Amino acid sequence: MNIYSDRIAHLRKLMEQEGIDVYYIPMSDCHNSEYVGDHFRCIEFISGFSGSAGHVVVTKDEAWLFADGRYYIQAAHQLEGSGIQLMKWGQPDVPDPDTFLQIQAKGKVIGFDGNVVNTNFAKRISKTAKNVKFQRDLVGEIWTDRPEQTFTDIWHMPVEYCGETTESKLARIRAELSKAEIPCENYAYLLASLDDIAWTFNIRANDVPNNPVAYAYAIIQPDAAKVFSHGDGYGPNWYKGCTPDGEATESLPIALAEKFRDKILTRVIKGFTDYTPKWEDIADDFCILMDMNCVGYSVWRFFTDRRIQVVHIDDPSTKMKGVKNETEIRCLKDAMKRDSAVVIKLMHWVKSHAGKIHLDEMSIDEYLLQKRSEDPLFMEPSFDTIAAYKENGAMMHYEATAQTAKSIQAEGMLLVDSGGQYKDGTTDITRTFILGPITDEEKKAFTLTAVSMLRLLNAKFIDGCRGENLDIMAREPMWQVGWDYKCGTGHGVGHVLNVHEGPHNIRYRIGVNGPSAVLKEGMVVTDEPGVYREGQYGVRTENELLVVPFMETEDGKFLQFENLTFIPIDLDGIDTAYLTEEDKKLLNNYHEAVYETMAPYLEDELKVWLKEYTRPV
Amino acid sequence: MNIYSDRIAHLRKLMEQEGIDVYYIPMSDCHNSEYVGDHFRCIEFISGFSGSAGHVVVTKDEAWLFADGRYYIQAAHQLEGSGIQLMKWGQPDVPDPDTFLQIQAKGKVIGFDGNVVNTNFAKRISKTAKNVKFQRDLVGEIWTDRPEQTFTDIWHMPVEYCGETTESKLARIRAELSKAEIPCENYAYLLASLDDIAWTFNIRANDVPNNPVAYAYAIIQPDAAKVFSHGDGYGPNWYKGCTPDGEATESLPIALAEKFRDKILTRVIKGFTDYTPKWEDIADDFCILMDMNCVGYSVWRFFTDRRIQVVHIDDPSTKMKGVKNETEIRCLKDAMKRDSAVVIKLMHWVKSHAGKIHLDEMSIDEYLLQKRSEDPLFMEPSFDTIAAYKENGAMMHYEATAQTAKSIQAEGMLLVDSGGQYKDGTTDITRTFILGPITDEEKKAFTLTAVSMLRLLNAKFIDGCRGENLDIMAREPMWQVGWDYKCGTGHGVGHVLNVHEGPHNIRYRIGVNGPSAVLKEGMVVTDEPGVYREGQYGVRTENELLVVPFMETEDGKFLQFENLTFIPIDLDGIDTAYLTEEDKKLLNNYHEAVYETMAPYLEDELKVWLKEYTRPV
Repeated sequence: MNIYSDRIAHLRKLMEQEGIDVYYIPMSDCHNSEYVGDHFRCIEFISGFSGSAGHVVVTKDEAWLFADGRYYIQAAHQLEGSGIQLMKWGQPDVPDPDTFLQIQAKGKVIGFDGNVVNTNFAKRISKTAKNVKFQRDLVGEIWTDRPEQTFTDIWHMPVEYCGETTESKLARIRAELSKAEIPCENYAYLLASLDDIAWTFNIRANDVPNNPVAYAYAIIQPDAAKVFSHGDGYGPNWYKGCTPDGEATESLPIALAEKFRDKILTRVIKGFTDYTPKWEDIADDFCILMDMNCVGYSVWRFFTDRRIQVVHIDDPSTKMKGVKNETEIRCLKDAMKRDSAVVIKLMHWVKSHAGKIHLDEMSIDEYLLQKRSEDPLFMEPSFDTIAAYKENGAMMHYEATAQTAKSIQAEGMLLVDSGGQYKDGTTDITRTFILGPITDEEKKAFTLTAVSMLRLLNAKFIDGCRGENLDIMAREPMWQVGWDYKCGTGHGVGHVLNVHEGPHNIRYRIGVNGPSAVLKEGMVVTDEPGVYREGQYGVRTENELLVVPFMETEDGKFLQFENLTFIPIDLDGIDTAYLTEEDKKLLNNYHEAVYETMAPYLEDELKVWLKEYTRPV
Repeated sequence: MNIYSDRIAHLRKLMEQEGIDVYYIPMSDCHNSEYVGDHFRCIEFISGFSGSAGHVVVTKDEAWLFADGRYYIQAAHQLEGSGIQLMKWGQPDVPDPDTFLQIQAKGKVIGFDGNVVNTNFAKRISKTAKNVKFQRDLVGEIWTDRPEQTFTDIWHMPVEYCGETTESKLARIRAELSKAEIPCENYAYLLASLDDIAWTFNIRANDVPNNPVAYAYAIIQPDAAKVFSHGDGYGPNWYKGCTPDGEATESLPIALAEKFRDKILTRVIKGFTDYTPKWEDIADDFCILMDMNCVGYSVWRFFTDRRIQVVHIDDPSTKMKGVKNETEIRCLKDAMKRDSAVVIKLMHWVKSHAGKIHLDEMSIDEYLLQKRSEDPLFMEPSFDTIAAYKENGAMMHYEATAQTAKSIQAEGMLLVDSGGQYKDGTTDITRTFILGPITDEEKKAFTLTAVSMLRLLNAKFIDGCRGENLDIMAREPMWQVGWDYKCGTGHGVGHVLNVHEGPHNIRYRIGVNGPSAVLKEGMVVTDEPGVYREGQYGVRTENELLVVPFMETEDGKFLQFENLTFIPIDLDGIDTAYLTEEDKKLLNNYHEAVYETMAPYLEDELKVWLKEYTRPV
């Protein structure tokens, strides 16, 4: 029994009052964000689990946390004493949370906060239920010292970094909507995903740590568009950059906002408070378009309860955002090289100082932050640095604290996964450094991870492929020895936006919402295989890749990846017994490119060192 | 102008009478069969195109045939003079037939024969239409000398070959149905796919050439099951093997059928004539379950027009049928070895006789039929033999005729794709034989095809993978040089059933009905990459593979393929310049297994020859 079991008990009392049999708590906000601000970390409040993804289910007698492969180890520790059972999501015998909820809620009353559960998920989990109660946020009612939602200044993303005006983006979105089979001419497209809004309207903020977005909703109509953000009702901070005829400014006072009120959306919406829309007086010749995998169930219910037609569309902005334009690519390539230089410096520093000075996991984060901060375009880390020494590396999303940071010696492996938000790009890089003697199995793991990363990087593929088709290029070297890593191989990366973004990824599993998007020229994706052994070690090697043309022949158009990350793969961990001749060529070619590209960014001493660490095997 | 343009003109007159703007003609029967009997070859009648798959769309002024990559060349020839435009389905700029129909039919009247268009496809193509006319078969009305539907004797598949009784299969299907989320206790599951019915009820016939199935529908209820086949109304040939309490017999006279009438389905269905159901007096506490990707639109409309609830389910029998049981596997392995011996004999014969005796493409089919017929368990070919010499090999589904058969010389490549229906298994095998000098490009094509086949055969993969994940294992060697083959890499194979069957396959594209089934232990799948160069040559190498366990580790359960086809890959076509060291090992290991396995099946002279043609490279 601990503080969390007390909170669960409190929750069960509220459930009983409300007549709820099964209560569901997501790791989400009103915008289906992957990473949420502290205000929305209800799962951590109720269970103690601090991972970035999870689902909690509470019934009268039992409680479960679903955590994915990145968090099996961490979740097991954090749930101790809470009475909450860990469901190792992704294991063959563990159902998906939605399937599990369908079974638990069959013929019963299911409850959840409808603002923070997306429509499609909510519909799935309440499919078998007798009744659905979505109006109350029961965890919020218990959580007395809940942090406020954070609202930071919204700034405009200049075209010199983003490469396309909002007007142009809106025109493309409307063209896409007009191609879709929509049963109404007079539509209002409701956009809730924060990074899609940030991309479409070329705005950025710091409302969610590491993710430069603003809490907002947006409405796009055939002849108008509006962002609702940082205000109560119609005031005070509506953003002007969102209207196609308005010029972007740094902020927008009430007076300006008033000008747009009548012109645009009063016909559709008359109230919009505290980011939970209160929709009134909606004309009936409309239909609402929304991505039901993103917009909250409460919003959907609002419309459908009033018999207003709601049509699902996949957010067209998500697909457009995923394909980087020339400006974004040019900016990103530059940011990636500057960031590669930072990690090369770290690699040299930690390998040459381990065992000689006091170093712990926190030192790594501090070093990276200091070096990155020297870059005038650096804003903040793109996610919490993972500096995980020895067995801590087995926890995919480990985060050291001052209390727990492990001391680093001249032995074993150190996994460092970090990235920066620069004004010209978002980076995400992992390297595992060999700090001294490692075991044969560690060498095998390190080498096969390098092979996996390199084989995917060097894949050629016909236009039309998705990440699901390509994933095996990375995994096959692992699968040949009966190994697997319990996470995806890669994810899209935003441009000065979320470090994880869709619509594409590299995974072998096809999700409940269907396959990921076809890989297209201009998409950025990570390539990050690894080996994770609980209590022993962890290896991950991660590059960012750009989809570029390969060739066009009579058989079609072929694509390939251009490498964006120029950091050595630590040769001290390579055992050539696990490399084929072809793998050796891939590794040597990669290292040659690393040296050629990065030498100009480094001082002479480091150049000599880099030459040695990019030598052919 | 030719006979086909006349027929299109006739069809347009009927369309005008009926007020139809867009008429759609599928290559299908009432059961969504892939291969159809002559009665259902409406596309060949109206367009002259004789391929096994296609779609025809006719409007007032234009007509189109959609043919896939296997048929681009053949269709172009056959459409000459018909005025019908060829749509090269699968090319990036060509829409899918259903998308194309949505555009053509927007705001117009679409027509088709609702018996032969499956429900989901029909719903998709009529989505944008003003009105749908599905009651008349306009092509049938023109087609005066249309062949009758073929009805052959139905026979019982003994448990010694099929390994599981109908009772057991029905119990498994019912268990699966009870797990599904069905909104009614009192269901009738309507099964229309002929091979699923044949598998479930352990019956076989010869109603469709090469596919040992009987035209039939089946109904499965919680406490009853019935096959409707080969009779008018309730008579005369209802099959007894279909009832869980009946013993299988070779045929079923009217008298016996009468016994089951009251007991089982009269409550649901009171008439069933000519295989197009006439449903009457259906109780209203029912729901009908059906696979809407298979059952005809007319049937669905019958129910929904009467406000009877219809619920889509994926046919559970399809998944069960795809996983072969121990008996089926044992039988199939034996059939595959006997069939491999036939093809080895062909290989030896054609390579040693080309240029010495008169040989043409028809001779190959005759030789195979003769050799296979010596096997007492052989019934018929599992599909029309493709014996395609030189440039004919570029047509994936080429069929020689006495008039067109190409004479075979001691040069170039001969592609032979053939298979047998044996009482203990269905085979499907392709080899390309080198009959004399070939070009460097042909050698490259032949070698890369071998590499592609072998790399997929040797893939290891975690449980949970689908064909979409594995396809790149075969294609990557081609994609690395900008080549691709315009067809899937592999398909399921029935057990004494259709040579193509689901629910799994090996392709990179994810179809409109979603991804293929997860690969499971016991599934059989072909592995048949190739290179096709119009007017020049064609190469294909095809083995049948069985999914078997690889290993279980802390990371999960891993699967691999067991090879079922033991025929040399003609070493005269291999250029070792295109083989990595690993590829050489794969080829040599494969050839060693071919010799070890097949030597006992061959006479001494052939053994010596086989030793030479399975030598290490």
